[in-house]
Amino acid sequence: MAQIRHALNTKREDDFAAWYQEVISAAEMAEESGVRGCMVIRPWGWGIWERMQRLLDDRIKTTGHDNCYFPLFIPLSNFEREAEHVEGFAKEMAVVTHHRLIAGKDGGLVPDPEAKLEEPLVVRPTSETIIGDAMARWVQSWRDLPLKLNQWANVVRWEMRTRMFLRTSEFLWQEGHTAHADETEAKEHTLTMLEVYRAFADEDLALAVIAGEKPENERFPGAVETWSIEAMMQDGKALQAGTSHYLGTNFAQASGIKFQNKEGSESLAHTTSWGVSTRMVGGVIMTHGDDDGLRLPPRIAPQQVVILPMLRDKPEDEALIDYCEALRATLAGQSVFGEPLRVLLDTRPGKAAQKRWDYVRKGAPIIVEVGSRDMEGGVVSMLRRDRLWDAATGKVEFQNPTREVAGQTIPDILADMQNALLAQAAERRDANVTRGITDFAEVEKHFSDSRYPGWVEVQWSRPTGEALEKVVERLKEHKLTIRNVPMDAAPVDGTCIFTGEPAVERVLLAKAY
Amino acid sequence: MAQIRHALNTKREDDFAAWYQEVISAAEMAEESGVRGCMVIRPWGWGIWERMQRLLDDRIKTTGHDNCYFPLFIPLSNFEREAEHVEGFAKEMAVVTHHRLIAGKDGGLVPDPEAKLEEPLVVRPTSETIIGDAMARWVQSWRDLPLKLNQWANVVRWEMRTRMFLRTSEFLWQEGHTAHADETEAKEHTLTMLEVYRAFADEDLALAVIAGEKPENERFPGAVETWSIEAMMQDGKALQAGTSHYLGTNFAQASGIKFQNKEGSESLAHTTSWGVSTRMVGGVIMTHGDDDGLRLPPRIAPQQVVILPMLRDKPEDEALIDYCEALRATLAGQSVFGEPLRVLLDTRPGKAAQKRWDYVRKGAPIIVEVGSRDMEGGVVSMLRRDRLWDAATGKVEFQNPTREVAGQTIPDILADMQNALLAQAAERRDANVTRGITDFAEVEKHFSDSRYPGWVEVQWSRPTGEALEKVVERLKEHKLTIRNVPMDAAPVDGTCIFTGEPAVERVLLAKAY
Repeated sequence: MAQIRHALNTKREDDFAAWYQEVISAAEMAEESGVRGCMVIRPWGWGIWERMQRLLDDRIKTTGHDNCYFPLFIPLSNFEREAEHVEGFAKEMAVVTHHRLIAGKDGGLVPDPEAKLEEPLVVRPTSETIIGDAMARWVQSWRDLPLKLNQWANVVRWEMRTRMFLRTSEFLWQEGHTAHADETEAKEHTLTMLEVYRAFADEDLALAVIAGEKPENERFPGAVETWSIEAMMQDGKALQAGTSHYLGTNFAQASGIKFQNKEGSESLAHTTSWGVSTRMVGGVIMTHGDDDGLRLPPRIAPQQVVILPMLRDKPEDEALIDYCEALRATLAGQSVFGEPLRVLLDTRPGKAAQKRWDYVRKGAPIIVEVGSRDMEGGVVSMLRRDRLWDAATGKVEFQNPTREVAGQTIPDILADMQNALLAQAAERRDANVTRGITDFAEVEKHFSDSRYPGWVEVQWSRPTGEALEKVVERLKEHKLTIRNVPMDAAPVDGTCIFTGEPAVERVLLAKAY
Repeated sequence: MAQIRHALNTKREDDFAAWYQEVISAAEMAEESGVRGCMVIRPWGWGIWERMQRLLDDRIKTTGHDNCYFPLFIPLSNFEREAEHVEGFAKEMAVVTHHRLIAGKDGGLVPDPEAKLEEPLVVRPTSETIIGDAMARWVQSWRDLPLKLNQWANVVRWEMRTRMFLRTSEFLWQEGHTAHADETEAKEHTLTMLEVYRAFADEDLALAVIAGEKPENERFPGAVETWSIEAMMQDGKALQAGTSHYLGTNFAQASGIKFQNKEGSESLAHTTSWGVSTRMVGGVIMTHGDDDGLRLPPRIAPQQVVILPMLRDKPEDEALIDYCEALRATLAGQSVFGEPLRVLLDTRPGKAAQKRWDYVRKGAPIIVEVGSRDMEGGVVSMLRRDRLWDAATGKVEFQNPTREVAGQTIPDILADMQNALLAQAAERRDANVTRGITDFAEVEKHFSDSRYPGWVEVQWSRPTGEALEKVVERLKEHKLTIRNVPMDAAPVDGTCIFTGEPAVERVLLAKAY
């Protein structure tokens, strides 16, 4: 087999973390901003997020939520109301203390001591407390419930160690917040939104996630139940890709969300919150990227097809561009996944071969190159990003359909590629969850011996409090965490791997981002 | 003529400012958040902004811009680089000085003195300086130009006196930033984006704006030229609804945006920036609202048609809902303005008449009420928000087309209403710009005598520096400002109303928001 070259310098198996950074840089998705922990999201990266926003927003609206917008700043005193919540967030928030700058002694700018805020403002790390204030105003009677809100916003959590998309001080997300008349409805809604996230992750991002409940120690600060979707990255680590929380009456109590119930007496509302963030973009990279760069599920690709005429700065270029433009117009007039196909005809100066590799690194699903010979033959040279290399020859695997056939078949190829990426992710996940281990020493051995240990599913007795803390400590020694209790796990049939007591459920153990 | 009742307590002519606040509250668009200067944008208000974002974003993309995202925080030192810029913004910025809270002496939370930032961060009031840093990294050669970026973001300017939508400490906007190889192209682009704003304001929001250049004293801090679109509110005041700036090489110099030009030597880029914000929502209210609440141009209405079955909590309700649902489905399957018609069938508990007035206040363009009699007759009762009252009877002017005719004609009615609102706005603007005054004393008289003076267009010699300052001072005595130099004003034919020198252009004088 001939030598296969790759479009990146770093291979996944050599240094996964360095590979991840190289993909982000080579695909021009994002870069460091110079502001601690904050990144610049470049057009290609933003284009992916924009697609994700649109697709998830449609799903959220379909489940009856209205978008709205709450302030960036939250008064410090709001955080004092919910004890667990402040415990969980107070350590890592950006605090605004002044509202003006003046020239300092050395001529540079300094905060104006005369413009110190009476009460410092916190840049929102999440919005339960301020949305709770509004809910308390808006909810008076059972007729006002359920109240189903969502906002798309930036939030800030001061992170000591940051990594682009995965953990940044400022990140972008949607946060949904709902209030319900009773526990049953609120819990049901928590799971409805978890299912929205699962469907979005699987169907739109092709992530093949596992949905389940988080153990007590992994709950959102102030939540009664936290559910998550977990995605398996190619290095076998888990990425928490979305969470949905049943908050009980904790935040309703703190904010005073009360209503007159059908019986005429006063009740506290039961609230939920749930969020998905730009971290999901990191999950897409680490699930679908390969040693040539990013591979994008067509549903979220900013451009699904890129057409590259091989221009030579000669008069013949014009005919070539016309030939390509006809294909572009044909494709732009077609639908895929229920919306217009996104196609780019790139006629900027530069060599087509160079541009081909740029778009390979960016993960454009289909790249169509057209030279004068193709034009003469009435064909195009077409690359499918998920089948880039011909295994036999070691060369790039071009297909050469006629232009007409390309125009007709590309929508189906995109649909096929979306399915293929999901199938690959699901297959890898299924092959890398180890089951049947009944002894913790074996778990330890599994994670220390194997280079790609993946996840381990074990049975446990759902310990709480101190007993759980002991389990968490023991896992921590191996850098392991409990990911979640999968909703569709098999029934239990043994004892707890930690306590020896009868098992009540199965949990996933993994290293995680 | 019979007495006409109105859906609001305050009439425009009695107290325009109070009327404005009442519309926002009665239409459930927004409310105070309890955080100084920051508002909560409620679902109906957000739905309008979301439509505006989508429509303007499409226009911005059509002109070749890529969306991206830059950090919320800007290091203080960035502001020290461009002298005029810091002068213009330093006085009103939110400053982050700490990144952690701890328990204070009284048990409450306080900023942790151990977690003081070495360099304070400013919450972006606008992003020229941080985007300039990125442009300096991305632009190396003339081949990298033009660079055309846009971002949708929240920004903060610490305002002493705030008013919902019009002037809030935090507001939402898009800010476009471009870099060009030369002055000609950059200036041309400044005007291209001004025209995008004009078309958006007129065609989508039906505002009937006047586009023109701002005088020197009204320029964006650091700009060489500032252009604006100005909209006339119903109280005759002007609202600056969007601005486009040619920044020369000022920010390129400050950030180091240099490139190798075609001749092989180094040049500074010429940059532009331009923005439109949530303030535009305030402009829509003050342009189209009436004494019954908001009236929305159909293009930006969250719901274009609202169907209200007159439910009576009886078994017959089911047939009525089915009857309405058929109309809803017919309408939802139709297009208007090139996209699916937005229609809501509201079956929540509550009286239809009560709901009718809620939607009148919200400005839903068409309200369809259906009672059992309508159903029996195969008709519907339809209200057009811009023709609510029958002048002869003083009653609400229902039309009673058959359900089939309603389903067929509503898209045309919406298109007609969009045009009618623009025509009304244009007519009011044209009737309220006074021309031909050649003496400043007459201007003073015009503004002190008239209750609705509108705007005055005068000729001037375009004074600069101290001469301009004198003019500005003189205008200030009457709370007047120079709005802009209209692009399509008539040629000059006289002398400057301020200096007596030969006039070089015409300027608009007005009170403004």
